[in-house]
Amino acid sequence: MKVALVMGSISDWPVVKQTASVLDDLKINYDKKIISAHRMPEHLQQFAKNAKDEHYQVIIAAAGGAAHLPGMLAANTLVPVIGVPVFTKSLHGVDSLLSIVQMPFGVPVATVAVGNSGAKNAGLLAAQMLGMNDDSIYQRLVSYRKNQSEEAIRSNEQLE
Amino acid sequence: MKVALVMGSISDWPVVKQTASVLDDLKINYDKKIISAHRMPEHLQQFAKNAKDEHYQVIIAAAGGAAHLPGMLAANTLVPVIGVPVFTKSLHGVDSLLSIVQMPFGVPVATVAVGNSGAKNAGLLAAQMLGMNDDSIYQRLVSYRKNQSEEAIRSNEQLE
Amino acid sequence: MKVALVMGSISDWPVVKQTASVLDDLKINYDKKIISAHRMPEHLQQFAKNAKDEHYQVIIAAAGGAAHLPGMLAANTLVPVIGVPVFTKSLHGVDSLLSIVQMPFGVPVATVAVGNSGAKNAGLLAAQMLGMNDDSIYQRLVSYRKNQSEEAIRSNEQLE
Amino acid sequence: MKVALVMGSISDWPVVKQTASVLDDLKINYDKKIISAHRMPEHLQQFAKNAKDEHYQVIIAAAGGAAHLPGMLAANTLVPVIGVPVFTKSLHGVDSLLSIVQMPFGVPVATVAVGNSGAKNAGLLAAQMLGMNDDSIYQRLVSYRKNQSEEAIRSNEQLE
Amino acid sequence: MKVALVMGSISDWPVVKQTASVLDDLKINYDKKIISAHRMPEHLQQFAKNAKDEHYQVIIAAAGGAAHLPGMLAANTLVPVIGVPVFTKSLHGVDSLLSIVQMPFGVPVATVAVGNSGAKNAGLLAAQMLGMNDDSIYQRLVSYRKNQSEEAIRSNEQLE
Amino acid sequence: MKVALVMGSISDWPVVKQTASVLDDLKINYDKKIISAHRMPEHLQQFAKNAKDEHYQVIIAAAGGAAHLPGMLAANTLVPVIGVPVFTKSLHGVDSLLSIVQMPFGVPVATVAVGNSGAKNAGLLAAQMLGMNDDSIYQRLVSYRKNQSEEAIRSNEQLE
Amino acid sequence: MKVALVMGSISDWPVVKQTASVLDDLKINYDKKIISAHRMPEHLQQFAKNAKDEHYQVIIAAAGGAAHLPGMLAANTLVPVIGVPVFTKSLHGVDSLLSIVQMPFGVPVATVAVGNSGAKNAGLLAAQMLGMNDDSIYQRLVSYRKNQSEEAIRSNEQLE
Amino acid sequence: MKVALVMGSISDWPVVKQTASVLDDLKINYDKKIISAHRMPEHLQQFAKNAKDEHYQVIIAAAGGAAHLPGMLAANTLVPVIGVPVFTKSLHGVDSLLSIVQMPFGVPVATVAVGNSGAKNAGLLAAQMLGMNDDSIYQRLVSYRKNQSEEAIRSNEQLE
Repeated sequence: MKVALVMGSISDWPVVKQTASVLDDLKINYDKKIISAHRMPEHLQQFAKNAKDEHYQVIIAAAGGAAHLPGMLAANTLVPVIGVPVFTKSLHGVDSLLSIVQMPFGVPVATVAVGNSGAKNAGLLAAQMLGMNDDSIYQRLVSYRKNQSEEAIRSNEQLE
Repeated sequence: MKVALVMGSISDWPVVKQTASVLDDLKINYDKKIISAHRMPEHLQQFAKNAKDEHYQVIIAAAGGAAHLPGMLAANTLVPVIGVPVFTKSLHGVDSLLSIVQMPFGVPVATVAVGNSGAKNAGLLAAQMLGMNDDSIYQRLVSYRKNQSEEAIRSNEQLE
Repeated sequence: MKVALVMGSISDWPVVKQTASVLDDLKINYDKKIISAHRMPEHLQQFAKNAKDEHYQVIIAAAGGAAHLPGMLAANTLVPVIGVPVFTKSLHGVDSLLSIVQMPFGVPVATVAVGNSGAKNAGLLAAQMLGMNDDSIYQRLVSYRKNQSEEAIRSNEQLE
Repeated sequence: MKVALVMGSISDWPVVKQTASVLDDLKINYDKKIISAHRMPEHLQQFAKNAKDEHYQVIIAAAGGAAHLPGMLAANTLVPVIGVPVFTKSLHGVDSLLSIVQMPFGVPVATVAVGNSGAKNAGLLAAQMLGMNDDSIYQRLVSYRKNQSEEAIRSNEQLE
Repeated sequence: MKVALVMGSISDWPVVKQTASVLDDLKINYDKKIISAHRMPEHLQQFAKNAKDEHYQVIIAAAGGAAHLPGMLAANTLVPVIGVPVFTKSLHGVDSLLSIVQMPFGVPVATVAVGNSGAKNAGLLAAQMLGMNDDSIYQRLVSYRKNQSEEAIRSNEQLE
Repeated sequence: MKVALVMGSISDWPVVKQTASVLDDLKINYDKKIISAHRMPEHLQQFAKNAKDEHYQVIIAAAGGAAHLPGMLAANTLVPVIGVPVFTKSLHGVDSLLSIVQMPFGVPVATVAVGNSGAKNAGLLAAQMLGMNDDSIYQRLVSYRKNQSEEAIRSNEQLE
Repeated sequence: MKVALVMGSISDWPVVKQTASVLDDLKINYDKKIISAHRMPEHLQQFAKNAKDEHYQVIIAAAGGAAHLPGMLAANTLVPVIGVPVFTKSLHGVDSLLSIVQMPFGVPVATVAVGNSGAKNAGLLAAQMLGMNDDSIYQRLVSYRKNQSEEAIRSNEQLE
Repeated sequence: MKVALVMGSISDWPVVKQTASVLDDLKINYDKKIISAHRMPEHLQQFAKNAKDEHYQVIIAAAGGAAHLPGMLAANTLVPVIGVPVFTKSLHGVDSLLSIVQMPFGVPVATVAVGNSGAKNAGLLAAQMLGMNDDSIYQRLVSYRKNQSEEAIRSNEQLE
């Protein structure tokens, strides 16, 4: 049981690294890959078609601009795909967001926020999906959230 | 094992009905509920806190405008939440989309497209999550997608 | 009689500090708190439900991204809530603004401008609300505005 | 003690009527006026300067496009001003919203949502401000919200 | 020598028909096809990879929403691809436009306007590309433009 | 015969200075003033009402955010008003642009581009208006444009 | 002394007719013309180059989409050009507005609001420019505005 | 056989240089020129009208803001025109994009992405057009893309 962490280009790694870090914290196995929808379309298809047999349970895909990677992965597998819209200089990730979230009927992509929050949340969302049937992951998520909550409470106490 | 189908107001039913229809097609059990984040905040919290114990495996939440329902549900449970941004007259669902997708680190919402495609895809995405560990649902998804593909191929043949 | 100054995260303090500074100038009492809508949903509810009894007359809430804090506070109290949309890197606070201002019928949030001007104006707006029935605050506002006006006039004279 | 309900043109009445209806429901006195910021600038200034002495406690102002009415009223009085951005055909009220909410430091406008929800919420927000020091209005707001909540709960029961 | 006219769904035919009509006017051969990027990803790849051998000199692809068709065709062939962003109800074709035009380095799509003007211009642009080496097509374009110019001049004369 | 150069705040001077520089180049007299629409509403009205009698032939007004200055000046005079939308950090001057250009029927503002190009063009546009009846200004504009054209031609020659 | 009323296509006449109607009310002479920037580029250049000699004092140009007409006229003459952004179905005139207003340094276009208000205001703005040196036009503008003001005051009296 | 590389101003050279670099890589001849649509309208017309006779097979035009250069070139020639929207500070190239892509029926511009990716892709797109009838260019494109693909595959291997 593992997660696939896919990015369109090595330049997306600083974003995807944050997803990886959350998965590390939650002790979830993952493979990380560069698969460009536009430069490696055959690899994309091959990877997505085999994802189920390779025991990937969730795919996380980050891409920017005319971001076709998450949607094209989703078109070639029924493993759930989480899409992370990468921030872009010219259009601030609005292009990435719309290219990922506005999928037509038949091929959903579970889209998260533009940028770093989204990248980290992609890790949590994958964990929540895995936690549907894996109680140990679910319990780690419970602790993780409890920690975040306590940290927020502490920062409130410090402020007051 | 079932899905919760939550909407902020009865006026969202025409959208949510399309999610329900996809779940019906895939023989997935669901309960449908109106829980207004703003008018029924205690119900929201109670529902979300009990969702796991009530054996909901996925929550689908549709809302429009300053759409807080999906995010607030997600803040009160670790069951995965799918957010459906409802089209709005004045801002065309851009407000709904941004209010749902731009969640801060810690509480992801799996966001789908604005409007009807998104509503239907929410049903498919829920099924894909359930299909991670339920082979009969997975097989129904395989058939469902195959039908869609064949239909597209047939429409191509008719056009040519 | 006092104002509650609420932010979703300590990272919003540089913005909220400017509200505090205006309240200081106007000699208005306030408590400052971090209450994350998503990480501390029960605190949020508890705080808002007790706000009236705790003699808060106005609540000012700053949040960014899918900013649910002001709206969820407003859903749990009838004390007026002023929402301050925090600037965000990716979407420039447009997400914050729409998530705060586009509230559905039943639960208004008094929204001010994105960023620092809005943060400072939130303090003035709270003072105007308090000044409806407190003549000393009203008189301090009269002086404050007069000062601003005179400063603008002086800068004109210097320019000419 | 009363509210002033100001619109830029008779064409805004269908929107403002909804504010009036909420004020009627809550038994709050109001005067309704057409004061065009651009066609009646002297009336605007005279009205705003006298608003306090005329015992207006809150001003609600609706305007569309380059909507200067709420901001210019606010520049001429320290009575709190609520701004209602009217939907516009070409820019869908985005112009109205930005022209009202993005006020510079010194002159806040309490902005509500574009269109009908905003118009109705302007009435509620005015009532909340008045309710800060008027317990009978506050109690009517409590009932009003309770009714809304019960209505939402009933619609949920009917759906289930 | 011919043009391929590809759409993502039969629902795009009313738009693509206008491209066809321009190609008819210019006596340019074309095949029309439905190839859904998301429902028929293997057909897409097969079609694009063979396009050169099948003697397609230009591909015109129309799609809406998260419009991946033009870009994915372009990723699988070096035949020039013209992308037509189809108008969408919720986001007015802005999603289609950005998903098509914002392609990463390596895989350009020649993008035209959203909607009917764009669809017709796609036909003209294809003709201009063919006209680079086909003088009879070039001459037909000269006549076509001259007619448009004369029609504009006549409408001016009638107006005056 | 002279031009009035009005800004809402001294912070707009770096923008307005560029208008001034163009007017200097064209030997056009101008007075520069800070008149805040919101902090000095009476000065605004007084200035605008007297503008004709003070022999101002054109008014140039720069403002940012909810930019009411150009429109309110235009509402109080029939001297033509040119509006310069100042760049804003959060909304990039889109708020300034819409607040200035979207004026209702009755009170036009001649709007130029956001930022520095707009500021400089405001000076040229004022000169063109003055040049309608002042041949020496018109001739200076002819030279000015000729210089710009020659400079562009020279930069082309250098590039080639 | 007259105004040129130019549109890119006969389809813009319903918009431009409203400019004409205002000019009629103010007894200002005008010629109306269809000059397509894209289909009649030579006519455009010829017309603009001769505009001064033909005694046009102001040019009003309406165009939609990638609206190049006002800017290209302005590039070929030093007669002031007023640009009217025509509403477009797909992008709601935002494309028209940005294509007209965002002119580079050297060639200003005096831009008015998108749609009908803008079209009518273009007539008023032209009149204000002419009124700079023509007192009878100026007086007619004074009456026109006074009528508008009185009409607004009457509508207020009827409402009250 | 050659390509024309046109920019509106020397300030666009850092962008256009990237197009040039791609053309260099592909051994495609080109001439580079500054032709300002607004400052050199006659040069523009003359250049475009002669482009075919000068044996330009493709024109690439980069411009920002109210970017009229690509469209006006296209209006004066039937040689295909590729438009590159230059990033702008205030509106992030959205103005450039819409001014270039939203061309009316009759005069298409083949638009690429805002900024550097678009600039480089313009070179590739021109090469693809030339490659329609020039097999050596086509083969160089095949190699170029293969290199890009192999580079992406290598970066994947390094990451894993």
